[in-house]
Amino acid sequence: MGVARMATKAGTGPGAGVRIHPTALVETAAIGEGTVVWAFAHVLAGAQIGRDCSIGDHAFIEGGSRIGDGVTVKNGAMIWDGVTIGDGVFVGPGVLFTNDRYPRSARAPWLDRDHRREDWLVQTTVEEGASLGAGAVILPGVRIGRFAMVAAGAVVTHDVAPHALVRGNPARQAGWVCRCGQPIAATEARATCNACGDGYGLSSHGALLLLDGSDD
Amino acid sequence: MGVARMATKAGTGPGAGVRIHPTALVETAAIGEGTVVWAFAHVLAGAQIGRDCSIGDHAFIEGGSRIGDGVTVKNGAMIWDGVTIGDGVFVGPGVLFTNDRYPRSARAPWLDRDHRREDWLVQTTVEEGASLGAGAVILPGVRIGRFAMVAAGAVVTHDVAPHALVRGNPARQAGWVCRCGQPIAATEARATCNACGDGYGLSSHGALLLLDGSDD
Amino acid sequence: MGVARMATKAGTGPGAGVRIHPTALVETAAIGEGTVVWAFAHVLAGAQIGRDCSIGDHAFIEGGSRIGDGVTVKNGAMIWDGVTIGDGVFVGPGVLFTNDRYPRSARAPWLDRDHRREDWLVQTTVEEGASLGAGAVILPGVRIGRFAMVAAGAVVTHDVAPHALVRGNPARQAGWVCRCGQPIAATEARATCNACGDGYGLSSHGALLLLDGSDD
Repeated sequence: MGVARMATKAGTGPGAGVRIHPTALVETAAIGEGTVVWAFAHVLAGAQIGRDCSIGDHAFIEGGSRIGDGVTVKNGAMIWDGVTIGDGVFVGPGVLFTNDRYPRSARAPWLDRDHRREDWLVQTTVEEGASLGAGAVILPGVRIGRFAMVAAGAVVTHDVAPHALVRGNPARQAGWVCRCGQPIAATEARATCNACGDGYGLSSHGALLLLDGSDD
Repeated sequence: MGVARMATKAGTGPGAGVRIHPTALVETAAIGEGTVVWAFAHVLAGAQIGRDCSIGDHAFIEGGSRIGDGVTVKNGAMIWDGVTIGDGVFVGPGVLFTNDRYPRSARAPWLDRDHRREDWLVQTTVEEGASLGAGAVILPGVRIGRFAMVAAGAVVTHDVAPHALVRGNPARQAGWVCRCGQPIAATEARATCNACGDGYGLSSHGALLLLDGSDD
Repeated sequence: MGVARMATKAGTGPGAGVRIHPTALVETAAIGEGTVVWAFAHVLAGAQIGRDCSIGDHAFIEGGSRIGDGVTVKNGAMIWDGVTIGDGVFVGPGVLFTNDRYPRSARAPWLDRDHRREDWLVQTTVEEGASLGAGAVILPGVRIGRFAMVAAGAVVTHDVAPHALVRGNPARQAGWVCRCGQPIAATEARATCNACGDGYGLSSHGALLLLDGSDD
């Protein structure tokens, strides 16, 4: 993806070991080592990005957002103020976050600028290891659980349980997925991933738990 | 959002008082005072944009489109020839307009270029004060009424009534909203917005009317 | 669309007769004569693009993708490794392809980089003359048949038959379309396009066939 054409900026702005494509705009210094920012992406002042992330072409990361370590943000994704993304999350191409339940143009001619409501900013959280498929739209205020999988094109209007697979508009749960991303047939109280062998159990309140104790 | 890095262009091209990010491309002079165009956006010759608008990063505004005053066009939205947008509209991130009901590649090898049909361009209108949520897709030829609210991820295939809330794919009406954007519980003939106090009445033909007379 | 501002690059990189906007990035030499690449688009090394194509603003074409002749790729569309697009296809604005059924961040802190599964890349094919409407999301591994029409906002999770019209999330067949793009009322064994006069027949296994023999 054109790595040879990229320069490594060190010392000022982003820290040493951050690679930034010549056409990208990076206005925050809070980017961890090993992160790469691709062409035409724009990271605003006030954004926080961890180590070893990849920020794809044409992506937009607003001030006030927080992104963990090892996160992949694919091309054209938009991450706004109020969005928190955990370690190892996959944000697919064209994924759209939101942060206002009742958006109106703040510049409308009939508005007194002092009248914009103060509580418009809503927080959204994606927990570690989750994946958001291409073109997913995430309504403001939801929490997407650890290792959940949001299908491509889903419109997420409610919280998503850890390890849940959701799809559709509005998104509804259609199954469970393993940490490795593969579907889990959790029809019984216990299940094993056919791809990687991880073992899971369904709790009495319907949550899928990894049986190595890390979900306790 | 990096205002300090932007220069104000005056005298040529866009008029005085228009702020254009150094990476943006603006090829029309028809932009009103107070409008700002952000990074990597592209406004083509023949586009008309009013006063006090904000055109977000990576947005695309084609020639033949008309945008009123105080409009917010968020990042990555695409506004084509044939689209008319009223004053104070909110066009959310990644909103996609369309202007051809039966799109085919006009460059296909088997096409005689003289055979492209002449009536392909369809007009779409968004009336003043309406909001289009993130990732909404607007089919060609629809009219979205005053102060309507299109939910994030909705695919709008039919006209939307003034003050209506629509959502889903295809978009269907799910309620009413106030001028301020908040939902209105219009279960009776009259309703009041809990947020701003505006009063509404349901007309005999099922339309929501603001009771200060401005919807007459 | 700003043609006058574009230079023609000849001799190195893309071949003679390819027009590339000054802000576009083109890193492949495999682009046919007569193709134009618009502003802020990015075509990576290893991508193959045919003759007389148009690649819109902010589009992204990854290495390993193959695009035929006379293809229109509208703004912001993303075409990844593993995607093959036939001659004369229309890829609408914001169309998102995918190439991994079970996406996870390959950079997650808990991953040994040697453990990324080897079979993640899935092939997707769009046959000649098909159209993908604005914002369509194409799941990995599907085949979209000749002259099919994917409606704007559709999420394609299964193969699409030639000449089929599909829409919704998930996309389901809603009718048939002619080569010219217009709907065909194929309620009987034979049908004629009202717009262009092409004749079609429904085969015994439910496929729509053009009656000039070219679909044999």
